[in-house]
Amino acid sequence: MTSRIAVDAMGGDHGPSVIVEGAVAGGRARNARVLLVGKSSEIEAALEGIDQTGVEIEIVEATDTIAMDDHPAQAVRRKPQSSIIVALGLIADGRADAMISAGNSGAVMAGALLVLGRVKGIERPAIASYMPTATGNTLLLDLGAVTDPKPSNMVQFAEMGQVYVERIMNVKNPTIGLLSNGEEPTKGNALVQQVHPLLAARSDLNFVGNVEGKDVAMGTVDIVVTDGFTGNVALKTAEGVASLLTDILRNEIAASLPRKLAALVLRPAFRSMRARLDYAEIGGAPMLGVNGAVIISHGRSSARAIENAMTVGHRAAEFDLAGGIAERVSRVLPSSEGPKIPPSSE
Amino acid sequence: MTSRIAVDAMGGDHGPSVIVEGAVAGGRARNARVLLVGKSSEIEAALEGIDQTGVEIEIVEATDTIAMDDHPAQAVRRKPQSSIIVALGLIADGRADAMISAGNSGAVMAGALLVLGRVKGIERPAIASYMPTATGNTLLLDLGAVTDPKPSNMVQFAEMGQVYVERIMNVKNPTIGLLSNGEEPTKGNALVQQVHPLLAARSDLNFVGNVEGKDVAMGTVDIVVTDGFTGNVALKTAEGVASLLTDILRNEIAASLPRKLAALVLRPAFRSMRARLDYAEIGGAPMLGVNGAVIISHGRSSARAIENAMTVGHRAAEFDLAGGIAERVSRVLPSSEGPKIPPSSE
Repeated sequence: MTSRIAVDAMGGDHGPSVIVEGAVAGGRARNARVLLVGKSSEIEAALEGIDQTGVEIEIVEATDTIAMDDHPAQAVRRKPQSSIIVALGLIADGRADAMISAGNSGAVMAGALLVLGRVKGIERPAIASYMPTATGNTLLLDLGAVTDPKPSNMVQFAEMGQVYVERIMNVKNPTIGLLSNGEEPTKGNALVQQVHPLLAARSDLNFVGNVEGKDVAMGTVDIVVTDGFTGNVALKTAEGVASLLTDILRNEIAASLPRKLAALVLRPAFRSMRARLDYAEIGGAPMLGVNGAVIISHGRSSARAIENAMTVGHRAAEFDLAGGIAERVSRVLPSSEGPKIPPSSE
Repeated sequence: MTSRIAVDAMGGDHGPSVIVEGAVAGGRARNARVLLVGKSSEIEAALEGIDQTGVEIEIVEATDTIAMDDHPAQAVRRKPQSSIIVALGLIADGRADAMISAGNSGAVMAGALLVLGRVKGIERPAIASYMPTATGNTLLLDLGAVTDPKPSNMVQFAEMGQVYVERIMNVKNPTIGLLSNGEEPTKGNALVQQVHPLLAARSDLNFVGNVEGKDVAMGTVDIVVTDGFTGNVALKTAEGVASLLTDILRNEIAASLPRKLAALVLRPAFRSMRARLDYAEIGGAPMLGVNGAVIISHGRSSARAIENAMTVGHRAAEFDLAGGIAERVSRVLPSSEGPKIPPSSE
């Protein structure tokens, strides 16, 4: 399938040139049609000097922009011509299969709810991202969509994570951990202590129990479920430590000439280490539970990160993540009367 | 001052030999009297082969032990002869100035409350630890003593952190950040949104606003205040990422002979990086708000970590942390009728 990916060309800290460069590279890599949404004049300027061979590019005019510090809920209502809302509208109109933005993430979330709506049965959408680990990758969610979830929201985070990992990573019956301050089932804050038995009672979720912060990096489980506040802190702490380590190593190496020479030999090793741990390079975090493939990228995304986000968007559309989540939730929720948890097999 | 430090010789994942080795080394470095608490026969066996010159060592018999998986509150009541309770009792009896344990941390906390009690005016004690950062160190608290604090508890965490950093690090009027999922004052979960205005209203606290997970590693502020659940997750996430990075680098270096040779030159650089980021090496986290210097060490503490914990314990006693916290709280709490927050100067 040739996917059509709408990219908010105005989003991100580095301006349209970086976004457009990454979008075009990602479109080429994925054989996707690239819909660049924003002010035509700025997009055209950004396209100059970029190799566009082999990529189908379309510019979609959006006369307005939402700033990073705009109030999300207000901005999406007051700025229907903003690049975020126009790009989301392309999915709603069937003109795009996925949408990527490195802009105001609160506005992307609010806009997705407004323009696309929630998947039927999903109480609160969540943001999910892969974290690099020792053994591969672990999906962490929620990363900030719901800072004070209800226990039932957290159970749906587990369901949506399961669909994501099964469909996109082709991992069957992925293991699920609940982020806590200790592995024992009795550990946790009040929320975690309420969620634990709900997850444990579900025979259709491969719940292995509580996991700790270190497990986010160690790949102990396929999916780590947490509230959006804690998930956001964990993600950004990981980013900060990875960045700190790189800085320390750089300073240590610069301390003498022999070290600098030795570092030349090790440059590919360092580069590989940095690439593995540059959380900004992961590209994009899908918003799970809305009717469409919406990918939220880091504000400080590089062109390479946007290129990677194109892959995430392409896959979210190709594997029909929203449809999979709708189907998954309908199994738990046979009527429209409210969530029914099937009896445990235990 | 020659401090007298009681060490729970039975605590920790590696057995008495590692604890005793670190305690003796720490006692020598700090010119402290070392009180080794536990089963005499095991302590004597551990002391064999350890250089004891220049260190005053005393063995204090404790016939029982609290296991890592014992229920903390029950264990401290049922096992008065356990090494943790006997060691805490040495402070209560005026025979020791500080106590260190790498054992069941829940039991150390419950035991400290039972044997030593809270500092007058402190609602909930907290655990604090220094985190390595780009610019030095940042104190993070709470790390797990209070998973669901009330807003007023969090304000006291800020006060206790201030005393710690002022007394032990000699930093005047240290900056304080509130851990959140964004820097804007409107960000945060419900708890953070309640705490933010309380901290902002206090002219006697150098509150700079919300900080993010990355700031824990970047040294943006001197003190990061958070609830014990989030703090524990952040600390362990940082540990996990640092450990992951070290593993990746090791594997990359082992990939070829030239890389291995270059790595020999860089070995001191790597060692320095690891030491800076080995959170287990930090040694010990003081429990702030109890009547005594109680230091909680990581279960998997090395001898070197215990040696470092001896320094933390020595300083907590030398600078009378508990007294400083009592004095600090009495300024906020002039009567015994309840917390009174002084009018803001704003």
